[in-house]
Amino acid sequence: MTTENIRFAARVDKLRASDIREILKVTQRPEVISFAGGLPAAEVLPGKELARVASDLLMEDGPIALQYSPTEGLQSLRQRIADRLHRRLGIRRSADEVLMVSGSQQALDLTGKLFVDADDAILCESPTYLGAINAFQAYEPRFLSVPTDDDGMLPEALERALAAEDRAKLIYVVPDFQNPSGRRWSIGRRQALLEIAARHNVPVVEDSPYAELSFDNDPLPAVASFDRGGTVIYLGTFSKILSPGLRLGWVAADASMLRRYVLVKQGADLHTSTLGQMLADRFLAEYDLDLHIERIRGLYKSRRDAMLAALDEHLGKDVRYTRPVGGLFLWLELPEDMDARQLLGSCLEHDVAFVPGSAFFTDGLHDNTLRLNFSAMPEERINEGIRRFATALHEAMESLAVGV
Amino acid sequence: MTTENIRFAARVDKLRASDIREILKVTQRPEVISFAGGLPAAEVLPGKELARVASDLLMEDGPIALQYSPTEGLQSLRQRIADRLHRRLGIRRSADEVLMVSGSQQALDLTGKLFVDADDAILCESPTYLGAINAFQAYEPRFLSVPTDDDGMLPEALERALAAEDRAKLIYVVPDFQNPSGRRWSIGRRQALLEIAARHNVPVVEDSPYAELSFDNDPLPAVASFDRGGTVIYLGTFSKILSPGLRLGWVAADASMLRRYVLVKQGADLHTSTLGQMLADRFLAEYDLDLHIERIRGLYKSRRDAMLAALDEHLGKDVRYTRPVGGLFLWLELPEDMDARQLLGSCLEHDVAFVPGSAFFTDGLHDNTLRLNFSAMPEERINEGIRRFATALHEAMESLAVGV
Repeated sequence: MTTENIRFAARVDKLRASDIREILKVTQRPEVISFAGGLPAAEVLPGKELARVASDLLMEDGPIALQYSPTEGLQSLRQRIADRLHRRLGIRRSADEVLMVSGSQQALDLTGKLFVDADDAILCESPTYLGAINAFQAYEPRFLSVPTDDDGMLPEALERALAAEDRAKLIYVVPDFQNPSGRRWSIGRRQALLEIAARHNVPVVEDSPYAELSFDNDPLPAVASFDRGGTVIYLGTFSKILSPGLRLGWVAADASMLRRYVLVKQGADLHTSTLGQMLADRFLAEYDLDLHIERIRGLYKSRRDAMLAALDEHLGKDVRYTRPVGGLFLWLELPEDMDARQLLGSCLEHDVAFVPGSAFFTDGLHDNTLRLNFSAMPEERINEGIRRFATALHEAMESLAVGV
Repeated sequence: MTTENIRFAARVDKLRASDIREILKVTQRPEVISFAGGLPAAEVLPGKELARVASDLLMEDGPIALQYSPTEGLQSLRQRIADRLHRRLGIRRSADEVLMVSGSQQALDLTGKLFVDADDAILCESPTYLGAINAFQAYEPRFLSVPTDDDGMLPEALERALAAEDRAKLIYVVPDFQNPSGRRWSIGRRQALLEIAARHNVPVVEDSPYAELSFDNDPLPAVASFDRGGTVIYLGTFSKILSPGLRLGWVAADASMLRRYVLVKQGADLHTSTLGQMLADRFLAEYDLDLHIERIRGLYKSRRDAMLAALDEHLGKDVRYTRPVGGLFLWLELPEDMDARQLLGSCLEHDVAFVPGSAFFTDGLHDNTLRLNFSAMPEERINEGIRRFATALHEAMESLAVGV
């Protein structure tokens, strides 16, 4: 018996390996300067602090930390998250309206499972987060890209899309420093989104891994902060503010919605790591997460500055790119006739890497776009990497000009 | 907007909260002696050892343990698991044929996602594991119970079922000390299962959390140990031999099958906790897991003995129960006209609890069955709990007799 004879589910045909993942494999060579990943800086992962916390925790409460625990998550951690959501982002949810999940990628999967029958419509930004496309794809939706500018989705376009579509199940958005574009929605657009979604009875999934990583000032209020009913399902995570390796995220939604998430979560993996949750809970009790996030913001801001300076110096006139005021990513548009996948090939010869942008579009078009990560390496490397990138780009532009 | 107006996916109607979970909530009162859970004994969760391991690990390799890691899992841990599967259970899979998952519950969910379209058939034992029913249910299969005796599925019955069914996608079995029945399949039945499944091109999912917890001698060879093709998908876990709170399990299957699991795992939660995997890897390097399992086996054997002795003393003539030679559970059949759910009500008045058996049947029948857990408490409590159980049962039998 071989797998050729085995019949898989129909959905399997729609799944594909993440582009980023395949690219990351190629860029493992140490000489490659990679702007392809989306990794937090190693310097801000609190290894020493968590070493102490883990040791104390396992000595004192080992049999609890190593045992099964409730699907909903650790109560004291849910309370800390509820408090934090209120204080930092204006979201009013009680601890009982917070479900701990195994990274916000799991929240995306549970969302697809809970809402999407084959051929249902998911409305999303253009571009949108690749990991969400991958998670939702397993439930065989149609993706509808809503026209979007630098301030967020265009309200009239969203209104039109919802009026024309009777199988709209979700509106999926990343309003703060979106992966991949670095875009942040204006407050007005957040309010307009909520009003339109509520009127059409279509839930908004607000995926918010980067909200606290703003470089200018405090975070803007979340879309969920304006929600007086149960329209917004808010997804958060410790991945970018504490540690991605712990795989700790959360869903904050009204109680009747959350009960359904608990049900699908239970079938998916029973519960999220007890030890991981207790570690995070104790870290939050003993250390100042706000201060820790301040450090991350400062570091990433310097790196963003370094990348923009290098781009301005080497490429300013040839391409367009965003100037994000938070997060981990910057988005770049090549001249219309260029293909970022081809450019990646030449870039790898120059030992520099990025992620081509077409994977972030549900129509697979927009071959001339690409994503650059600035969080994961020191400024000298960023500068050198952008220099190499510019060299490869200029070579490509020249050969394109010769070709014409 | 309230959730009444929101349209969920069709599958949501089929999901239900786990019976066990609801019962466990009722049995939180400290005065209740609960045989309802499926928890490892607290005494065998190695808190002190892992405190040291976690501290060393996070001091030395914190930035790696707290960072993102590959979907497939940590290579050295996959190698240790592959070696162990070979040495202990006769399974020949390389490290590359092992995928780390977030508890074997996740493996069940990924299996459903990979194989099951609505109305496909899953063949299973009768009774079967409740958590598998819950995981698979989200993919809307039909469950076909194959007649089963104390040695496992009846080969002729399996053959007939497969011949009559053209949408059979999976055969799901727990051949070692099954939850709930405590049953262990004979070697002949394991071989017959594999031969029949391979001939019909239907994969076998061998779910094996308890194989190493045998009380008589070494584990029997796994069904997967006889597999020379790619018929068996083997699911393992650290939950019962190291710690359930870490949520660490694995899928061992041939390379082309495993690639597809990796793809669905990536969409489901990117990867399993890096810290959890590195902790387990280091624990396995520094401690003798075989010796640790010896202790668990010894402890559970004493508790099984205590429960059987108490049952023999108080109930021997009134009910039938299994005499499992491993695992955590014992299965009990009340007289035909009794309802275990009603009995549970009376038992809770006597401060003792168990899980009614009907939840373990895909037809929801067999109201006269129940599951008892013997792993989680000391022998005196087991003895006292069975005494209370017998009192409640005898009261129920008397009132039933009066009623007649």
